[in-house]
Amino acid sequence: MKFGIIGLNGRMGQEIRTLFEEDRHQLVFSYDKDGVIQSDIPDVLIDFSLPEVFQKTAEFVKKFQCPLVIGTTGLNEEQFAMIKALSEKVAIVQSYNFSIGIQILLKATELLKEHIGDWDIEIMEIHHRFKQDKSSGTAKMLGKVFDRDIPISSLRLGNIPGDHSVYFGSMGETITLSHRATSRRTFAEGALKSAKFLRKRKHGLFSFKQVLFSK
Amino acid sequence: MKFGIIGLNGRMGQEIRTLFEEDRHQLVFSYDKDGVIQSDIPDVLIDFSLPEVFQKTAEFVKKFQCPLVIGTTGLNEEQFAMIKALSEKVAIVQSYNFSIGIQILLKATELLKEHIGDWDIEIMEIHHRFKQDKSSGTAKMLGKVFDRDIPISSLRLGNIPGDHSVYFGSMGETITLSHRATSRRTFAEGALKSAKFLRKRKHGLFSFKQVLFSK
Amino acid sequence: MKFGIIGLNGRMGQEIRTLFEEDRHQLVFSYDKDGVIQSDIPDVLIDFSLPEVFQKTAEFVKKFQCPLVIGTTGLNEEQFAMIKALSEKVAIVQSYNFSIGIQILLKATELLKEHIGDWDIEIMEIHHRFKQDKSSGTAKMLGKVFDRDIPISSLRLGNIPGDHSVYFGSMGETITLSHRATSRRTFAEGALKSAKFLRKRKHGLFSFKQVLFSK
Amino acid sequence: MKFGIIGLNGRMGQEIRTLFEEDRHQLVFSYDKDGVIQSDIPDVLIDFSLPEVFQKTAEFVKKFQCPLVIGTTGLNEEQFAMIKALSEKVAIVQSYNFSIGIQILLKATELLKEHIGDWDIEIMEIHHRFKQDKSSGTAKMLGKVFDRDIPISSLRLGNIPGDHSVYFGSMGETITLSHRATSRRTFAEGALKSAKFLRKRKHGLFSFKQVLFSK
Repeated sequence: MKFGIIGLNGRMGQEIRTLFEEDRHQLVFSYDKDGVIQSDIPDVLIDFSLPEVFQKTAEFVKKFQCPLVIGTTGLNEEQFAMIKALSEKVAIVQSYNFSIGIQILLKATELLKEHIGDWDIEIMEIHHRFKQDKSSGTAKMLGKVFDRDIPISSLRLGNIPGDHSVYFGSMGETITLSHRATSRRTFAEGALKSAKFLRKRKHGLFSFKQVLFSK
Repeated sequence: MKFGIIGLNGRMGQEIRTLFEEDRHQLVFSYDKDGVIQSDIPDVLIDFSLPEVFQKTAEFVKKFQCPLVIGTTGLNEEQFAMIKALSEKVAIVQSYNFSIGIQILLKATELLKEHIGDWDIEIMEIHHRFKQDKSSGTAKMLGKVFDRDIPISSLRLGNIPGDHSVYFGSMGETITLSHRATSRRTFAEGALKSAKFLRKRKHGLFSFKQVLFSK
Repeated sequence: MKFGIIGLNGRMGQEIRTLFEEDRHQLVFSYDKDGVIQSDIPDVLIDFSLPEVFQKTAEFVKKFQCPLVIGTTGLNEEQFAMIKALSEKVAIVQSYNFSIGIQILLKATELLKEHIGDWDIEIMEIHHRFKQDKSSGTAKMLGKVFDRDIPISSLRLGNIPGDHSVYFGSMGETITLSHRATSRRTFAEGALKSAKFLRKRKHGLFSFKQVLFSK
Repeated sequence: MKFGIIGLNGRMGQEIRTLFEEDRHQLVFSYDKDGVIQSDIPDVLIDFSLPEVFQKTAEFVKKFQCPLVIGTTGLNEEQFAMIKALSEKVAIVQSYNFSIGIQILLKATELLKEHIGDWDIEIMEIHHRFKQDKSSGTAKMLGKVFDRDIPISSLRLGNIPGDHSVYFGSMGETITLSHRATSRRTFAEGALKSAKFLRKRKHGLFSFKQVLFSK
């Protein structure tokens, strides 16, 4: 497909460009602080940039009447309302976490909850020393799968990008579900999956979870 | 419920008795090399003993017209045929592995295959030094979930009862599903779950997988 | 060697007997609530029983003038004084933890502290759900290796006998030292090593650490 | 100190510059394909570039009569001879692996070999799918610590930079030593440690192991 990137020169913009081109798609549009570069009309726009750019993104979506994958974090309510409005005309995937693995981990955690939700359960996460918040948002999200409070242990260590584990223990066995992030590339893969998902949609607002798990 | 155990004095017999009694069920019948002890008619019979005892087990099932949970390994075809015949009158659960965790691990592996079956996949198992076969049967069973050959690494170490891990890796993240056996008690728990499952069944032959996952 | 066991019928007594006999030593003396069984004079006495038995143990040591390996926990100060007095005539190993692996883990932790003690350090321990105290004594012991406070994460899960990990992280790598207990047999192995160590000693009071690391 | 970098614009050159400057050292000299940039005479030269550049490196070392840290791989015998000759006048650290953690892992492995070298031992390594060789050089190096053949399991998974584990198992416990690389920065840290080590040396050829472990 022909794709466009908002925020091409940022770290995520570069990751997305690389992956999409490896998968033989063609960059035909970009917007960055240096302005617009365009060689054709894009089939899909990807935006993992900043909230203050969103106004421009919305304009491009309207202009091209093309689907949008948006992973920008920190959007305000007005901007969400704008996304909702846009989605009546075009198809949009919006999420704060485009990691496929974390969505799969959640899915597996839900599966285990269904069958062994009464076992002892513990969550552990390890992140780099610079991470200020304890526990991580993802660990909390995993904990919310359950109907009761699950203890979360948080380790801060060197430059670990992010490890998450969910432990289940009975009197005779333990099961552990673990996820380990190794690079930002995973988010680009989530964007690509979303872009492909949108090709079959006329309009509507979708979560990344829907991209992965709806038929 | 009132339960009976074939092979009460064996290691599994003792585990089963302990767990069932903890769950407030009542031992009313047992058979062992010392003979029969009986105080009432059992609601269910449990047999995790030896193939040579099965003839007796079948007789008791007929006599009491009660359901049976059988975990005996090494049964021959004739004995399987007898189980099948018995199951026309009473409900029976038969399996070679009553570990709940391994069944759950399989289920989770199938879930991940569905979504990320194209990632790199590796299986690792660790067992005690006395284990002769490489790879373990359970590791092979996990490998068979996939449509392609999955490499299995086998470590032999001390007295580890049994660790199994399935690794999934993409260019940006890894997910690991791990199971670790810590005692035989887990098999007793599988027997208890099966016994409870059978209370709602009039007749038929069921696998342990059905006990866990059928509604 | 010819060995004697105080508390033969307890769980540790049985483990010790089994291991020593596997290593081709001969049980010639035992003391239990049923009394004394003796066929010869022991070369060494092993006591992993209870504090209230210690008076008897001391008498036997004096009588046989033989070395003693004592792993009984909860001894009071008077009893320690008695051990010290006995050790002027016979050689004694006393410790609260005869796990070889934990001592080795400590040694490795000390080695890493020397070289990378300025890295981020975290300790994690996992124990069965019945363990009341957080953190475990062993985790605290590992933390005391360092000159600063080390965070300890404690997970309570099923029937895990005891896992301990020490994590070291820099901006480019992590090192983890992990110990996992799989059975009580390890303590019997510590007793055997101690008994062999004592054969070369005339008298004196030794720790299990000295058994392992002194030349 | 004032430092110079051969191959400033390469990935390792940039890592080294960043780390040294964070530690408040001053870049006063660099050499790259664009030529020489010099503001002062360096106290030490760092070269993690390519074998074909080594001739130039040797000239700079002679000119400045300053110590050298060289991590270039693939040097030929003639070049090694030249390093040896240079080291009669200046102090040099040469190694193929400047990871502090791997050296520490080796050291810990040697410690454990000394005490529990008769336990069951297994080595496992996980690397990205592009790694052609099985087993990794580092895994082999770890195996060579022992006097007997140690099985090595090799997993190939996604983009894992490099995990190495050494397992020790007895009948009652296991100990695992694990190393995980998370970035190239670790090699820059090894270069910095080496540069500091050299300040106290007049001349001589040193390994990175000596930098870390000699007093």
